Amino acid sequence: MNEQGLSEKEIFSYLENVKSEDTDYYRVLSSMCTHPHKIAVEAHRLFIEANLGDLGLFAGAHSLEKEVIMMLGELLHAPSVKIPVEKACESSVCGYLTTGGTESNIQAVRGMKNVITAGKKELGKIPNIVIPESAHFSFDKVADMMGIEVRRALLDSEFKVDPASVESLMDANTIGLVGIAGNTEFGQIDPVEELAKLARQHEIFLHIDAAFGGFVIPFLENPYPFDFKVQGVTSIAIDPHKMGLSTIPSGALLFRSPSFLDSLKVSTPYLTTKEQFTLTGTRSGASAAATYAVMKHLGREGYVKNVQYCMQLTAKLVEEARKLGFEPLLEPVMNVVALRVPSPDLVRDQLLRKFGWNVSITRTPRSLRLVLMPHNTARDVEEFLQDLKKVTAEL
Amino acid sequence: MNEQGLSEKEIFSYLENVKSEDTDYYRVLSSMCTHPHKIAVEAHRLFIEANLGDLGLFAGAHSLEKEVIMMLGELLHAPSVKIPVEKACESSVCGYLTTGGTESNIQAVRGMKNVITAGKKELGKIPNIVIPESAHFSFDKVADMMGIEVRRALLDSEFKVDPASVESLMDANTIGLVGIAGNTEFGQIDPVEELAKLARQHEIFLHIDAAFGGFVIPFLENPYPFDFKVQGVTSIAIDPHKMGLSTIPSGALLFRSPSFLDSLKVSTPYLTTKEQFTLTGTRSGASAAATYAVMKHLGREGYVKNVQYCMQLTAKLVEEARKLGFEPLLEPVMNVVALRVPSPDLVRDQLLRKFGWNVSITRTPRSLRLVLMPHNTARDVEEFLQDLKKVTAEL
Repeated sequence: MNEQGLSEKEIFSYLENVKSEDTDYYRVLSSMCTHPHKIAVEAHRLFIEANLGDLGLFAGAHSLEKEVIMMLGELLHAPSVKIPVEKACESSVCGYLTTGGTESNIQAVRGMKNVITAGKKELGKIPNIVIPESAHFSFDKVADMMGIEVRRALLDSEFKVDPASVESLMDANTIGLVGIAGNTEFGQIDPVEELAKLARQHEIFLHIDAAFGGFVIPFLENPYPFDFKVQGVTSIAIDPHKMGLSTIPSGALLFRSPSFLDSLKVSTPYLTTKEQFTLTGTRSGASAAATYAVMKHLGREGYVKNVQYCMQLTAKLVEEARKLGFEPLLEPVMNVVALRVPSPDLVRDQLLRKFGWNVSITRTPRSLRLVLMPHNTARDVEEFLQDLKKVTAEL
Repeated sequence: MNEQGLSEKEIFSYLENVKSEDTDYYRVLSSMCTHPHKIAVEAHRLFIEANLGDLGLFAGAHSLEKEVIMMLGELLHAPSVKIPVEKACESSVCGYLTTGGTESNIQAVRGMKNVITAGKKELGKIPNIVIPESAHFSFDKVADMMGIEVRRALLDSEFKVDPASVESLMDANTIGLVGIAGNTEFGQIDPVEELAKLARQHEIFLHIDAAFGGFVIPFLENPYPFDFKVQGVTSIAIDPHKMGLSTIPSGALLFRSPSFLDSLKVSTPYLTTKEQFTLTGTRSGASAAATYAVMKHLGREGYVKNVQYCMQLTAKLVEEARKLGFEPLLEPVMNVVALRVPSPDLVRDQLLRKFGWNVSITRTPRSLRLVLMPHNTARDVEEFLQDLKKVTAEL
């Protein structure tokens, strides 16, 4: 830091310059984030000072958070339980706005640990959870920090988790299962109903990571079962800052029951409220306002249009790729395509170096991973396939 | 969510109304946050789309994050080690921007667990850390989630942790110590040099929670030893969104050595980068830009003025409170006052109900806790003391 400060003009001329190094999402097919909606950006700015870590001082922002949780609860078919106002949550479902999928996943597993381990006295010292092999790398963080064992179940030929593999990994120390509704690599949805059956039989948690799919699946023409409508689903992670078109950081964690959220509470002696069940302390109220604004502005119709647009691009990409001889690993269930190409890592490098395309790679098997987002266009799809053809021809 | 969306006008007229329920920090003496600086808000807006969870796509925002970490490293006397570019950090100190003190504290303890537990093969199954009784409630979350034991050492008569008590709680399974530089309740600074001596002797971590004090202590007339200048301090949490006047969420975690940060890495198969050592995935680049802008704009001089202003208010409050017969529990070392009053809980309620003052309470002993922030004025102090006099007279 300099002794004396720089002028606003000097700083912004530097910042404008630096900003040109950031993507504007042109030729980006690798990200599950996109441009936030303009109304989300405006609402974010209006509430830029709001701190959801101190709810007594920010009653306005807190009421927006509660409205968002109620809207998300409705979207995800939360049971309409009436809960007393003094409880952690006041809507028909309990939850709070997180910084994103990772925090939501961590907190869901913390809930499993506190609720299920407490209820199972015969449990050994190391509880375990069973997750799909396709689970997001945030579960590696869970494994690293939580003092629990994370077991990975195999996928079937369609890249859904195999319930038989899940069951074979379960034992008396299993406190919960995880299913993914829209996994990061393939956009595939795990068989949530079968996982829920296992969870109910063993009286353990089932957490659904719908960070990406939560703002896609409910708006598909034929939605898959993945949410609280399925008995046995105990918590869901959903990210407004992905397909919800809100600003960063906007995640959400919803629990079926207030007791699960209660299990995360610690005392907060010096705040205007007495307890806190969130992972972070100081929290962005701006994100709550942004998410409120975009959900209210788009309504169900707006999100349906958004998903239709992305699914049409997805269908176009698959159809035209097939004409060029490239097959997808699976028929896309949402706006993610895993495309079989020769030497995918090399192709990825070439696409970036020669044509500026950002794509990524699935792990097993290795294929080109393409996410079709609202920032992409039909023309992008056409140009991408032309460039892919050139790159593979030169291999 | 409605079927059809509402208009921008309808939404903003509602949001403006809701916002009036949030504090504008008038008569707030309970918060360690304040209005962010105007330039921070502007820079935040400029980078509102930036996602530090995908560094390859947001190279500009990432360069700002690195510059902030370098400025913070310089402020906190990080050792000037040159580290190769391919390492996790490129400045003279390793670190990253977090969502705030809680994430920083969690990650520091995760670092202890991964580095120290790995190095001590004779360790039992449950490692422990020793923290001051005055540590922030974020350590209750650490205790709840990490599978380690958290031991609380006693404070001395000045509300600093007692090194003898710390030592008595240490054993072969102790992997780290925590010291607070500006504890939340009293604004007191723990004896960092003595804690560092213990940490060096036992070859374990010493994490300093300077979430609040990090932007205060370096700017005091006589700074206390608390940072990397003290041999043995291995990590520091510092929050730009508190006395750094940046936007929410802006925290930072700095490590003395790259190997500590490396120990937090997980693989990130589908991103433009291959590894991630942060707790959250998607991260706000807007906060990095905001913190960069306000640190560059204020410079050292600006922060010195900010701290002088708050310390003058603090001195004024203590001096005039004494005239009314109210003694502080300790001579304030930073801009936090713990004021001995009769029936503090009742006084707190009355101050809020009758006069709209937001104050809080220290736990042991119970006293009025007052934080003098940039949003407070000399007139606030005078009015507050008049109101305090009225409230206590009526007890």
